[in-house]
Amino acid sequence: MAKKFTAIERLECSLCGKSYDPFEIQNLCQCGGSLVARYDLEEAKENMDKRNMSKRVLSPWRYHELLPLRDPRNIVTLGEGMTPLLQMKHLGEKLGLKDLMIKNEGMNPTGTFKARGATAGVSKAKELGIESVTVPTNGNAGAAWATYAARAGMESYIIMPRNGPEIARKEITAAGSHAYLVDGRITDANVISEQLNQDYGIFNAATLKEPYRLEGKKTMGLEIMEQLDWEPPDVIAFPTGGGVGLVGIYKAIRELNEMGWIHDSKTRMVCVQAAGCAPITEAWEKKERESVMWEESDTVAFGMNVPKSKGDFMVLESLYSSGGYATSVDDNDILSTKQMITKEEGLFACPEGSSAVAGIKKLLDQGFIDPSDKVIVLNTGSGLKYPDTVRTLMPLLQPGDEISIEIEENQES
Amino acid sequence: MAKKFTAIERLECSLCGKSYDPFEIQNLCQCGGSLVARYDLEEAKENMDKRNMSKRVLSPWRYHELLPLRDPRNIVTLGEGMTPLLQMKHLGEKLGLKDLMIKNEGMNPTGTFKARGATAGVSKAKELGIESVTVPTNGNAGAAWATYAARAGMESYIIMPRNGPEIARKEITAAGSHAYLVDGRITDANVISEQLNQDYGIFNAATLKEPYRLEGKKTMGLEIMEQLDWEPPDVIAFPTGGGVGLVGIYKAIRELNEMGWIHDSKTRMVCVQAAGCAPITEAWEKKERESVMWEESDTVAFGMNVPKSKGDFMVLESLYSSGGYATSVDDNDILSTKQMITKEEGLFACPEGSSAVAGIKKLLDQGFIDPSDKVIVLNTGSGLKYPDTVRTLMPLLQPGDEISIEIEENQES
Repeated sequence: MAKKFTAIERLECSLCGKSYDPFEIQNLCQCGGSLVARYDLEEAKENMDKRNMSKRVLSPWRYHELLPLRDPRNIVTLGEGMTPLLQMKHLGEKLGLKDLMIKNEGMNPTGTFKARGATAGVSKAKELGIESVTVPTNGNAGAAWATYAARAGMESYIIMPRNGPEIARKEITAAGSHAYLVDGRITDANVISEQLNQDYGIFNAATLKEPYRLEGKKTMGLEIMEQLDWEPPDVIAFPTGGGVGLVGIYKAIRELNEMGWIHDSKTRMVCVQAAGCAPITEAWEKKERESVMWEESDTVAFGMNVPKSKGDFMVLESLYSSGGYATSVDDNDILSTKQMITKEEGLFACPEGSSAVAGIKKLLDQGFIDPSDKVIVLNTGSGLKYPDTVRTLMPLLQPGDEISIEIEENQES
Repeated sequence: MAKKFTAIERLECSLCGKSYDPFEIQNLCQCGGSLVARYDLEEAKENMDKRNMSKRVLSPWRYHELLPLRDPRNIVTLGEGMTPLLQMKHLGEKLGLKDLMIKNEGMNPTGTFKARGATAGVSKAKELGIESVTVPTNGNAGAAWATYAARAGMESYIIMPRNGPEIARKEITAAGSHAYLVDGRITDANVISEQLNQDYGIFNAATLKEPYRLEGKKTMGLEIMEQLDWEPPDVIAFPTGGGVGLVGIYKAIRELNEMGWIHDSKTRMVCVQAAGCAPITEAWEKKERESVMWEESDTVAFGMNVPKSKGDFMVLESLYSSGGYATSVDDNDILSTKQMITKEEGLFACPEGSSAVAGIKKLLDQGFIDPSDKVIVLNTGSGLKYPDTVRTLMPLLQPGDEISIEIEENQES
């Protein structure tokens, strides 16, 4: 018998456990719960060779048995994933960490890790015969879905709060999406997408109302483990808004553990939020199972401005199970850390990724992280998408002027 | 005897042929000519296995025998290169091409192919003990060098015309560079960098005054051939400002040909310039060996605004030798093509890359390219670096509003 491209078995409700068919169009469970993909991991294990993954295609689709697609011809790709995991020697020294690495997700198409969710979600939508999608978004996810929908020849309807970032508007417009602003918040955008679904049957691909972007984000975890030669690190820190990225990485760890590809999955997951929007951290501190809506949320890291995540309970469960930690850092700390990362390492980080580095520093001070721990931080996007977070002040010379370095160094001191 | 990491033999003057030692610091030949790296290709061939390149590191440094570094510990990397070569089915159909692919260099660190020049140049500078560099730049090259210098712990002095792009200023500042604007053109920036070199011994890494960024850009050609399983395409089109990218790709083809890794190197190189700055195309049309300074140059594709390239004669030689072509396209054409690429394929192209696609269309109409030709176009940068080239006009909804799709479609028609 021919090997199957996917080992997916079913979709399972994250609340009530009811099963659904992954080869039909699905959104939420009847009970309102998000659906999560479950695989036949024995079958996956038989068809995959841990030592020979490098012979496969240079793409997160190399892990196709652990992704939901039946037919490889439905893959919609722009060369996402396989992002570098970079040793941060200078930055680690500054922070007092011996072994710090950053996985730079800013090198994805659309400049953020959201491209992973979009390649999985749009490919699966294509396989299911879906011709148009709607996505309510704070910016980056909408840009990714608009982009991948264009690549697939699919219509997209992107709804975004009016204070959303200019660069995402540009990307969404350039991709030929039907794009709308709403004079409100992401919750208002949700309602409009839901209405589009009800009125016109347009598929609503809102986070965790759509089962597969989680699977795309899971590939960050698969890649990290492969890049570390299947040796789990001590800590993985993720900047957390909705938290699907963190949940996806931990799902990868669990699946690989069950397959026996990694052992003793000691990895502690760390959730870092912005002080101006930290509902999950607050819930974690109180050891709650769910978060409470964060009123008047505000942060420079717009990707983390999620006042109430539909997946909050999954993030919290990942933290509890892994012996992890949740913390928050304020915008000043985020911006000064961002500056430090780029100066020390040349990595033009985004505020979200910078917050995770700032969080690591805090947990080092608090003793949750040891200086000898192997720590992986996800930089979720490119600094190119956040030009307003850099202030420039460059001296203006006239042609023929000479630069006097002594004078400059005096000015600096 | 241990295998050598590099097979470099010498630097050769591109004008008079004089040899220089690649293990000492070099800029130009005494005669003023640019120095070009020459390798022992027999030795390289012995140490490399064409069929097993995929087992090597995921980086252009996998081709280390054909790069100038003696010791791998000097590699300064941010995960550049290995960019996707994407089939452009929809776009090809629009243009009337059966087999069109775009290599998306926008996925490099710093968002452009300039990262390749910087990884080669900064790594080699580190190996040679250089502690500070100066780069006169129109923007993207300076951003890449500032970034890689930061990664290396090296000082950088970046000089840029005051009308240079805002985003490059942000990157250069973020990387902690000593950054200056000059109230003039790139030629004025050149003079200031030269003066810094004379006054303080700061290494001047201006294009083609520094021998190794060409080698970094060569890796685009090496990757293309590996990605095509060592079957050369019919046409490679490159958006041409200074033209070092085009020269680098053709150098790769020649070296691979000499090594016997590719046969019948039928590939015709195509140089596309902006109509507002097309000195090399003008020279090609007159079958000259060199170009003439283009006065009052102007184009939306700022990376191509090079009125007189120091490497013009090498670009022209590559075109003549390969049976290639030079053409130019105007800014309107560039911008409408940019829009088409992103709508059809989701690839957020830069104006430079878009100009190359527009050029391909022109050469199809003129018959130089056949509809059945295999054509590779380089998209040299990410659209994220050119936000001003996209106009957005998004309807503003109020919370609770519903979208009426019929009405919208009427508005569009």
